[in-house]
Amino acid sequence: MDRITLAHGNGGRLMHELIDRLCLEFSNSILDEMADAAELKLGKNRIAFTTDSYVVKPLFFPGGDIGRLAVFGTVNDISMRGARPLYISLAFIIEEGLELSILDRITRSIAEASRRARVRVVTGDIKVVEKGSADKIFINTSGIGVIEDLRRKIGAKAKEGDLILINGSIAEHGMAVLNAREKLGFASGIKSDCRNLNFETGRCVAISDTISIMRDPTRGGLAGTLNEIARSSNLGIEIYEKDIPIKPGVKKICDILGFDPLYVANEGKFLCFVSKKDAAKVKKAIGKNARVIGETVTAHKKEVHLKTEIGSSRILLPLESDQLPRIC
Amino acid sequence: MDRITLAHGNGGRLMHELIDRLCLEFSNSILDEMADAAELKLGKNRIAFTTDSYVVKPLFFPGGDIGRLAVFGTVNDISMRGARPLYISLAFIIEEGLELSILDRITRSIAEASRRARVRVVTGDIKVVEKGSADKIFINTSGIGVIEDLRRKIGAKAKEGDLILINGSIAEHGMAVLNAREKLGFASGIKSDCRNLNFETGRCVAISDTISIMRDPTRGGLAGTLNEIARSSNLGIEIYEKDIPIKPGVKKICDILGFDPLYVANEGKFLCFVSKKDAAKVKKAIGKNARVIGETVTAHKKEVHLKTEIGSSRILLPLESDQLPRIC
Repeated sequence: MDRITLAHGNGGRLMHELIDRLCLEFSNSILDEMADAAELKLGKNRIAFTTDSYVVKPLFFPGGDIGRLAVFGTVNDISMRGARPLYISLAFIIEEGLELSILDRITRSIAEASRRARVRVVTGDIKVVEKGSADKIFINTSGIGVIEDLRRKIGAKAKEGDLILINGSIAEHGMAVLNAREKLGFASGIKSDCRNLNFETGRCVAISDTISIMRDPTRGGLAGTLNEIARSSNLGIEIYEKDIPIKPGVKKICDILGFDPLYVANEGKFLCFVSKKDAAKVKKAIGKNARVIGETVTAHKKEVHLKTEIGSSRILLPLESDQLPRIC
Repeated sequence: MDRITLAHGNGGRLMHELIDRLCLEFSNSILDEMADAAELKLGKNRIAFTTDSYVVKPLFFPGGDIGRLAVFGTVNDISMRGARPLYISLAFIIEEGLELSILDRITRSIAEASRRARVRVVTGDIKVVEKGSADKIFINTSGIGVIEDLRRKIGAKAKEGDLILINGSIAEHGMAVLNAREKLGFASGIKSDCRNLNFETGRCVAISDTISIMRDPTRGGLAGTLNEIARSSNLGIEIYEKDIPIKPGVKKICDILGFDPLYVANEGKFLCFVSKKDAAKVKKAIGKNARVIGETVTAHKKEVHLKTEIGSSRILLPLESDQLPRIC
């Protein structure tokens, strides 16, 4: 391994090895938590701070576009720390020759998304590179949120005996982008689930003080994210196949193309690990699409096991290399 | 104008027109200040928040590299608001095929630069795009600093009667990058001035409460930055050519290649606008290379005039289009 491959950016084993390698240089207690957002002390405040670059291809897809993704992706990473997102930065790297009309469309989408999520774009940057030195446009957003309940810490580790909730059906973002990119022409009506989660997570945090971790299963999908949590929490995770929501059309396309939906990216879903006693009220706070899909166990530590519909059990391995690059 | 050109990213008129166009969508009181960093309220704290992407070509040049630039550039933008930089985020967009040894070298440089500036890398992101979809590596850093003196506001506007200080000689970063990129082979010994300014600005802010604005003249150089300040402050600016520090070797290469050093990028210089009464002590606080190079005037509002060494006066126009793309 002496060169970067696409698999280094896709949420799988190689990416984690690369992150570990880079983190050696920067190791500090905040970074080492390896959460979606860093939790920082600033005077008497605690804030969440996060960054993400967006390189999705194509720029526009059913259910979203790179601008909407760039706002909601960062808003969601902040929300997963139990923080209320307030401010975002916006940095464009643009390839020479991009049509201004495309830039305008993306900008309008960013503005609309920030209004929807109630965050403000407060600082920005534009760089232009020569034709052929980028792919149309890349967007970075960083974001700041405030953690209002100073007693709690959300997002580092799951706890033994937690139930695992999800707020809706999986694998829509990845399949919508793939369908648009490869012009597969499935008249599927599959739309990306790209949306902001801050109001939902806000309700959860307000109603329960036993949420141990929330995480949005983007790159690497549900199985990738659960593996990360099982490892970092040193717990086993059990998931029930029959309870995982997936729309029939999405399942069908996954089957045809040989994609495992458990590993396909989502952009509007989150997992909420919460105590058994609070699970029902948190489920209600999330809304009608919320489902309990599994639990943490002390057996098979660091492994995610799937109870299949026919009653057998299989290990969901960490992703070796993603099924699809440039998904976000 | 229906497509993005390189000039849209180079600190000149087209870039400002583009920023104005985009800002229409996001207009809010914080963004509209158009400073190097946004000033935000968070509970009882005031913080500075900024973002920049770095696309410099080549990745390594005498006096620096993309990693060092990415840390110090963001540290400096925070420092210009009179804030103390604390935390940075780090987002890589990497072209498939990049040698891991290059990535390691850049990462080490980032780690060293953050130690030097006393900031911590607390969150990050890695994206990989296909070969040909980026130019080796682009880096985004965003940063957060704390504004410790809550009574003051630095960085919005200059005041009438301010003297203008600079902390050293100009045009080194741009000419070092050009010399390295074009393999001009000038055995010039010209090095980029790329370095962190937070300790210098910290001393200035501690010693004087009449600093109205600080700004680092990066893209667009000294003349570009002064024009921005003259416009946003609705004041005239007068600069004395004989007092502007420039190394003989840098001046010579600029002359040979037809570059005006007043418009060439710097990465370790800052301008400090301060009252006449405090100018001497601020000059001393900056250090031995500090010089008074001009003042604000009520005449010729929004224009920058240069008093030449032979006693005449000429207008320094805002930059139409930068002399050199991908400088930072």
